[in-house]
Amino acid sequence: MENFVFYNPVKLLFGKGQIANIAAEIPTDAKILMLYGGGSIKSNGVYDQVKSALAGRNITEFGGIEPNPHLETLLKAVELIRKEGIDFLLAVGGGSVLDGTKFIAAAVPFAGDPWDILAKAAPVTAAMPFGAVLTLPATGSEMNTNSVVTKWETQEKLFFSSPLVFPRFSVLDPESTFSLPPRQISNGIVDAYTHVMEQYLTYAVNAPLQDQMAESILKTLIAEGPKTLADPQDYDARANIMWCATMALNGLIGAGVPQDWSTHMIGHELTALHGLDHAQTLAVVLPSNLTIRRDRKSQKLLQYAERVWGIIEGTEADRITEAIAKTRNFFESVGVRTHLSDYGVGLDTIPVIIERFEQRGFTALGEHKDVNPEIVTKILTLCA
Amino acid sequence: MENFVFYNPVKLLFGKGQIANIAAEIPTDAKILMLYGGGSIKSNGVYDQVKSALAGRNITEFGGIEPNPHLETLLKAVELIRKEGIDFLLAVGGGSVLDGTKFIAAAVPFAGDPWDILAKAAPVTAAMPFGAVLTLPATGSEMNTNSVVTKWETQEKLFFSSPLVFPRFSVLDPESTFSLPPRQISNGIVDAYTHVMEQYLTYAVNAPLQDQMAESILKTLIAEGPKTLADPQDYDARANIMWCATMALNGLIGAGVPQDWSTHMIGHELTALHGLDHAQTLAVVLPSNLTIRRDRKSQKLLQYAERVWGIIEGTEADRITEAIAKTRNFFESVGVRTHLSDYGVGLDTIPVIIERFEQRGFTALGEHKDVNPEIVTKILTLCA
Repeated sequence: MENFVFYNPVKLLFGKGQIANIAAEIPTDAKILMLYGGGSIKSNGVYDQVKSALAGRNITEFGGIEPNPHLETLLKAVELIRKEGIDFLLAVGGGSVLDGTKFIAAAVPFAGDPWDILAKAAPVTAAMPFGAVLTLPATGSEMNTNSVVTKWETQEKLFFSSPLVFPRFSVLDPESTFSLPPRQISNGIVDAYTHVMEQYLTYAVNAPLQDQMAESILKTLIAEGPKTLADPQDYDARANIMWCATMALNGLIGAGVPQDWSTHMIGHELTALHGLDHAQTLAVVLPSNLTIRRDRKSQKLLQYAERVWGIIEGTEADRITEAIAKTRNFFESVGVRTHLSDYGVGLDTIPVIIERFEQRGFTALGEHKDVNPEIVTKILTLCA
Repeated sequence: MENFVFYNPVKLLFGKGQIANIAAEIPTDAKILMLYGGGSIKSNGVYDQVKSALAGRNITEFGGIEPNPHLETLLKAVELIRKEGIDFLLAVGGGSVLDGTKFIAAAVPFAGDPWDILAKAAPVTAAMPFGAVLTLPATGSEMNTNSVVTKWETQEKLFFSSPLVFPRFSVLDPESTFSLPPRQISNGIVDAYTHVMEQYLTYAVNAPLQDQMAESILKTLIAEGPKTLADPQDYDARANIMWCATMALNGLIGAGVPQDWSTHMIGHELTALHGLDHAQTLAVVLPSNLTIRRDRKSQKLLQYAERVWGIIEGTEADRITEAIAKTRNFFESVGVRTHLSDYGVGLDTIPVIIERFEQRGFTALGEHKDVNPEIVTKILTLCA
């Protein structure tokens, strides 16, 4: 096992009716800004539940945060917060609203151009306190320090992370996700699955508990994903998917083990350039990424084949091929297509992506830092 | 899945050499009290590593905290802290030193008799900040809010828990455990195993991820326990046991599922009355407890039989019997005896234990609150 530091102080309130308990988590005299997205929270009852839980509190609202939240939109919230003297943020929505709120929390006290936090890795030395009401199980943003923001003007989708942007609390009520469109649930399953794979499917470091915990999440997603798509009001199935998505990216399964993340880095470019949903990019890139790098990942691919998919027959090469095929089929079976052509994207995007990586100084990605432009080109070629 | 609140802000520093990094976790101007036990930290190098990491800092020492820490000893530390104006505690040792430090942290600002925190469940409204350097993987105390203290005068072993006594940080360096006596490692394996069983072996609530995470810890203990006993300097085996013990009782596997804890409650009495090691009491009580209550636990016992022990042949009754036998054999195989007679304890202890339960107002224990004096008597009779 590798050395690690683990720290995650997010308080989770999980289950039916937990939105009613948020008042106790926010200082009584706080000037609250409630942030949300396109307004689905108004039709599914979450907006009313939040307003009811915070009756009598000082609340301002900021709606309209987009999927892949735009810097340009978030800076408007920063301006409002500074002007109104807001001192607590409440994100109500999915990963995009949460990621956007994290950026806003860091941007408000930031001296200078807040985009530098992402574009130049400018240090975050302070951030506003905030809580979250999660309405879409997928990104794990409710229990981590990660935030991804898109600068619309330049089509750049970049990432930052800081322990100062842990949510103070996150509410996860599976019932609040019953009315989500199937596409968002499908995306959430693929997103959580790929988060696990980025931390699990690397090379062995004799960390059996981390490995088995990762496999537990994968197996639960495989079992519960189809159930929750078939019956969106099956509370337990939805709860299980929601808990998997949080556990997939709260730092635990990645503690003490190598991590990859090249699928995400490549995928982000596909979203930035072509507007694919985040999970669609992962479903496209992961199977090809595993295929191109199967030799260096062979030990873990064989373990994955046996323990997650029960594949024990055939040569090692056959078992690896079958495990990657099962992965692709799973993504397709939950409704997320796995080829660039399914989204009308051609291979002419490859040199553009390579150029963007090089401009940002990425010489190589992955757990061995060997996913160089040549390998990225091979991976994307196989995604056709 | 049941509703839950999960919150665990302990910062873990895990791995070789991490003791060197504690200075950054303690305020520079803190008046530190370093607490420890019988002095093994002086022979195994941990004492020197801590002093070296904190060179130049203001440190007072308090040694001599016993296994099953005594109220009488801990109150001496409380007096010292109040007199010297100590403002940060550093526990260096195993579960007993950590539990004792938690009690001290709560007792210092407590108005009145601190024993009331345990004996009368008096509310803890403040506690001193503290960190921990763990030298014995077993109790999980390094990442939870639990503390068990023994009042020597009356032979009472009682428990309290408060979110105010989370360690600020805990260092887990597997190398610091290489020199432990085998008995303490054996005990740690049984303790961690039983912590998992108390949260897992109840009844099903459709929480597959929690179940599989619990099974992952059990399987890792079964695989790594014999390895670490055979070769105490096998870093990975020791690291895996250490990580299992922490994960067994940091709240995660118990989130959203029913919990039992009757084995612990019965076991505490055996330690208080007869001086058995904590883990010895668990090894004695758990197999009999599962046997007496096998009907109401049958669903989970069958799952445990199949997934943890690979038992798939025979009738349901046979499989349950075999799974319980495997559990007992595992405890014996790692060197912890499983019968009261192994420790010279007779059945005349039973009425004494029942009377003590009744005096404290425990009418019944367990996940169904049905482990009443009659059932406790049956369980203990089977432990003979």
